[in-house]
Amino acid sequence: MLLNPYAAYLAIYMDPITRLVNHLQRFVPFSEKDIPALKEHLGTLHVGKKEHLVEPLQPCNEHYFVVEGCLRMYFFNEKGDEQTVQFAIEDWWITDHAAYTQGVDSHFCIQAVESSTVLTVNRKIQEDLFRALPALERYFRIIYQRAFAAAQYRMRVRQDYSGEDTYLMFKKSYPDFVDRVPQYMLASYLGITPEYLSVVKKRHA
Amino acid sequence: MLLNPYAAYLAIYMDPITRLVNHLQRFVPFSEKDIPALKEHLGTLHVGKKEHLVEPLQPCNEHYFVVEGCLRMYFFNEKGDEQTVQFAIEDWWITDHAAYTQGVDSHFCIQAVESSTVLTVNRKIQEDLFRALPALERYFRIIYQRAFAAAQYRMRVRQDYSGEDTYLMFKKSYPDFVDRVPQYMLASYLGITPEYLSVVKKRHA
Repeated sequence: MLLNPYAAYLAIYMDPITRLVNHLQRFVPFSEKDIPALKEHLGTLHVGKKEHLVEPLQPCNEHYFVVEGCLRMYFFNEKGDEQTVQFAIEDWWITDHAAYTQGVDSHFCIQAVESSTVLTVNRKIQEDLFRALPALERYFRIIYQRAFAAAQYRMRVRQDYSGEDTYLMFKKSYPDFVDRVPQYMLASYLGITPEYLSVVKKRHA
Repeated sequence: MLLNPYAAYLAIYMDPITRLVNHLQRFVPFSEKDIPALKEHLGTLHVGKKEHLVEPLQPCNEHYFVVEGCLRMYFFNEKGDEQTVQFAIEDWWITDHAAYTQGVDSHFCIQAVESSTVLTVNRKIQEDLFRALPALERYFRIIYQRAFAAAQYRMRVRQDYSGEDTYLMFKKSYPDFVDRVPQYMLASYLGITPEYLSVVKKRHA
């Protein structure tokens, strides 16, 4: 008997570890025999919209992989306004890497923008997993290399491009994302005011 | 017969590969038996002060490790002014990671701030070396993870701190570096004018 295609779809995509493994296999030859190690050591967390995973001045000992939903990392600037520095949607990792790597308190908040399902990896376990699974270490070498390349590029965009050009480049890179998050969060990520974002969006609707 | 200590010092530190291996061994257990692979595949380059390693809109197929000297990465902003985005002194790596990783033309320049000696790794060779030397891949996973953590932190500093605080934090992190490079380069890296940098330096001399 054939499986209902929708049920098969759910069976594949609703299991967080399977979703992560499918993602890993796009970058490295991750062996099926290593899946039990992931199942044993990674946690699954469901967080409601606006719920916080990391509060400021608290430790940040987990690395989060978004299975479904959207997280963001932000801080409160000197005026007390929220300043978003990063978003993470499906198949993206997010954490405060300085706090995570060094085991010190975070100066950022990590919050669910939407109701989300995430996999969590504790920093000590991540180091053990790298020793046990060289393919996982290779995957993270590639991911960190790409993340740092994107950060270099973003630094240039923020220093050199107008708010309008920054928005257009972001929209070109992430076309489905522009309307997915509250506009004040997107505006602070882009370094422009919500009012100016509204003007620019209308101009390029 | 005992070696002259100064000659021994030179013997250790003037050989670029030995300097790199000493550095690698601070992060990973890099085996002596893997040194010939580095000697075979890495190049050594001497560049004069102000000489360019990468010109804009040219490929950037090398990753540079500074053995001695100082490099910087910069671009020309819309006004035509140089904008420094990164420095690299001894034991630091530098490249335009987006161009290097994807094999596309660079939108940055990489220039020697001082007369420098660098080791070079071609991007295709680097991938082969990662396959041959897992310790090297682990080292770069750690280095990229730290670089991305620093980029997240720098993004926050640039968005939230005054020019004066940015200078003070930079001076605290790199006390010997503040007077090592031309002040207009340091000012553009910190996102302030050379005139303001001069005022702030006098205030905190």
